[in-house]
Amino acid sequence: MTRTLPPGLTANAVVAASSANLGPGFDSLGLALRLYDEIIVETTHSGLVVQVEGEGEGQVPLDSSHLVVRAIERGLRELGLTAPGLIVRCRNDIPHSRGLGSSAAAVVGGLAAANGLAVQADCTPMTESELIQVSSEFEGHPDNAAAAVYGGAVVSWTDTSRGDARYAAAPIRLHADIHLFVGIPQVRSSTAETRVLLPEHVSHHDARFNLSRAALLVVALTERPDLLMAATEDVLHQPQRAPAMPASGEFLAVLRRCGIAAVLSGAGPAVLALSTRAELPAEAAKFGAESGFTVVTTSVGSGVQWTSGVVVGS
Amino acid sequence: MTRTLPPGLTANAVVAASSANLGPGFDSLGLALRLYDEIIVETTHSGLVVQVEGEGEGQVPLDSSHLVVRAIERGLRELGLTAPGLIVRCRNDIPHSRGLGSSAAAVVGGLAAANGLAVQADCTPMTESELIQVSSEFEGHPDNAAAAVYGGAVVSWTDTSRGDARYAAAPIRLHADIHLFVGIPQVRSSTAETRVLLPEHVSHHDARFNLSRAALLVVALTERPDLLMAATEDVLHQPQRAPAMPASGEFLAVLRRCGIAAVLSGAGPAVLALSTRAELPAEAAKFGAESGFTVVTTSVGSGVQWTSGVVVGS
Repeated sequence: MTRTLPPGLTANAVVAASSANLGPGFDSLGLALRLYDEIIVETTHSGLVVQVEGEGEGQVPLDSSHLVVRAIERGLRELGLTAPGLIVRCRNDIPHSRGLGSSAAAVVGGLAAANGLAVQADCTPMTESELIQVSSEFEGHPDNAAAAVYGGAVVSWTDTSRGDARYAAAPIRLHADIHLFVGIPQVRSSTAETRVLLPEHVSHHDARFNLSRAALLVVALTERPDLLMAATEDVLHQPQRAPAMPASGEFLAVLRRCGIAAVLSGAGPAVLALSTRAELPAEAAKFGAESGFTVVTTSVGSGVQWTSGVVVGS
Repeated sequence: MTRTLPPGLTANAVVAASSANLGPGFDSLGLALRLYDEIIVETTHSGLVVQVEGEGEGQVPLDSSHLVVRAIERGLRELGLTAPGLIVRCRNDIPHSRGLGSSAAAVVGGLAAANGLAVQADCTPMTESELIQVSSEFEGHPDNAAAAVYGGAVVSWTDTSRGDARYAAAPIRLHADIHLFVGIPQVRSSTAETRVLLPEHVSHHDARFNLSRAALLVVALTERPDLLMAATEDVLHQPQRAPAMPASGEFLAVLRRCGIAAVLSGAGPAVLALSTRAELPAEAAKFGAESGFTVVTTSVGSGVQWTSGVVVGS
C-alpha cells in the first residue's frame, strides 16, 4: 500500500562526485571526490518546482524528467510512499558530462533525500546496500553509485546469475599518502557515446592484463601507493577512448611520463591523477593548463549524507 | 666472468606448494600452501647425482634435465658462478601435475639453493624480486613463483611493454579467519594441456566480470572473508576447463552449493577451498572422498627458505 506524504516535510542530501574505473577497474572500481552536490526537497500539496543553481543551471530540464526528481520519486516508490507535490532545489558543484559521476550523484542524492522525507513518516529508510542497488538499476554504474553512497574508494560488482542484475560493493580504505588531482576540461562527453567505442570482444591476454592490474590496484590504493603506476595500467577502455578525446589522451600520457598514475575519470574526458607527491610536476601542470584543463587538487569524498526537517531556504 | 665453485659447499632450500589463479585471478593471484619440498645440494669435483624421495620418485629423470638441477644451474649462471659437479637430493611432498605449483617450487627451490651456495663464495644472493623474475622466465607462472618466493598470498603481474617480459608481485596478508582445504585427486593433468582449452578471445563483458572479482578477491582475502563466495567467481578459465576434469568440476559445484568458496588450484585438477568455517560441510567432504579426492586441511605456506653449509646427509 502506498502512503501519501503530508506537505511541509523537508530533507536535504549532500552527495559527492566520483571517478569510476580508475584505469583497469572498468565498471568496478570507484572513488568519491571532495566535490559535492546538495539537494533540498520539500513536500507540497501539489505540483513540482525544480530549481538548479551552479552546474547544469539553465541547461537541465526543470520538470519531472529532471534526474533528481525522478530519483526522489523512485526512492519514495521503493519506500511505499508518494508525494502529491515537491519543491526540489539543486545546488550543484559537480560538472556534468565530464566523467565525474554527476548522474550517479543526482540519483544517489535523490534517493537519499527520499530517505530524509521517509523517516519523518516513520518509514525505515533504504540501507546503503539498497541505495547502491536502486541507484545502479536506475543509472547503470555501480562503481560511481557505490562511491557516492559509501564515499572513499570502492570495489563494486554485478551479479546477473539470477536474472535481474544485483549490484554490490565493498568499501576499501584509501592510503593516507595518496594525493588526488582532477583535470576538468571544458569539453563534454557522454558515457553513452563513448561506450560505443569499446569492442565487444577482447583477447584473453588483455582480459588477464586488466584483471591483474585491477587486483593490484586494490593493493596499491590501500597499502602500496608505490605500485600505483603499474596498478593503473589498462588495455580495455582507455586506449579505445583516446581517439575520441585526444586532449585527455595526451594529458594522460604526459602525466604518466612524469611518473604520475593518471587515468581517465569514468568514461572521460576528465582526468584523475593519483600520486604520493603533493603537487603535480610543473611540466604536467603546464601541459594541462595549456590544453584546456582546469586542474584541481582534491581529496577523497565522503559518503552521501541526508538530514530531515531542514527548513528550506534557511 | 664466471667463477667456479669449489667442491664441498652445501646448501638446502625449503619451498612451498602453491595455488595459482584462485578463481578470477587468472595468471595473477597466488597462494602458498603449507606443503613443502626440500632440496639439498652439494658441490663436487665433477659429475651429477640426483636423488628423489617422495613425490616424483621413480618418475622424474635423474639427469641434467631434472627441473631442480636446471634451476640450480640457471641460478648459478645468473650469479656468475658454475659448479663442476653436483649432488642434488630432493625430498618432495608436493604432488606433481595436480595444479599445486610443484614446477614453480622446483624452480624457486633450485634458485634458492643456488643462493645458498653463492653466499659461501662471497657472492650476493638473488633478491626476492630477482627470484620471481628468473623463476617466472624459467617456468612461466609468476603467480605460483611469487607465492613460492614470498609465501602467503600474492598479486603478480607481467609487463611486456619493454620487450622481454618483466614479472613482479606484491604480497598481501591473508585474513586470519580464512581456513584452507585442498582436494587432491589421483588423476594428473598438465598445465600445457589444459591451457589449450582456453579461448583466444572473450567478451568484454566477461573481462569486466573477472576483473571486478579479482579486485574483490584482494578485499576478501585481506579484509572481508564474508565476500569470498562472490569474490571467487570466474568465467575466464574454470568453466572452459571443467569438461576436461569433470570430477573437479563437480566437486567445485558441490562445495560452492554448500557455500564454500572453492576454486580450481592453478589449472587443476586439484581443488582449493577457502572458508571461514574450520571444517568442510559433511556433504562436501563425503562427495570429495567418493570422487577420488584426498581432502587435506591446510594453511598458508611460508616463503622459500635457504640455508648454507648444511652437512649433506645429516
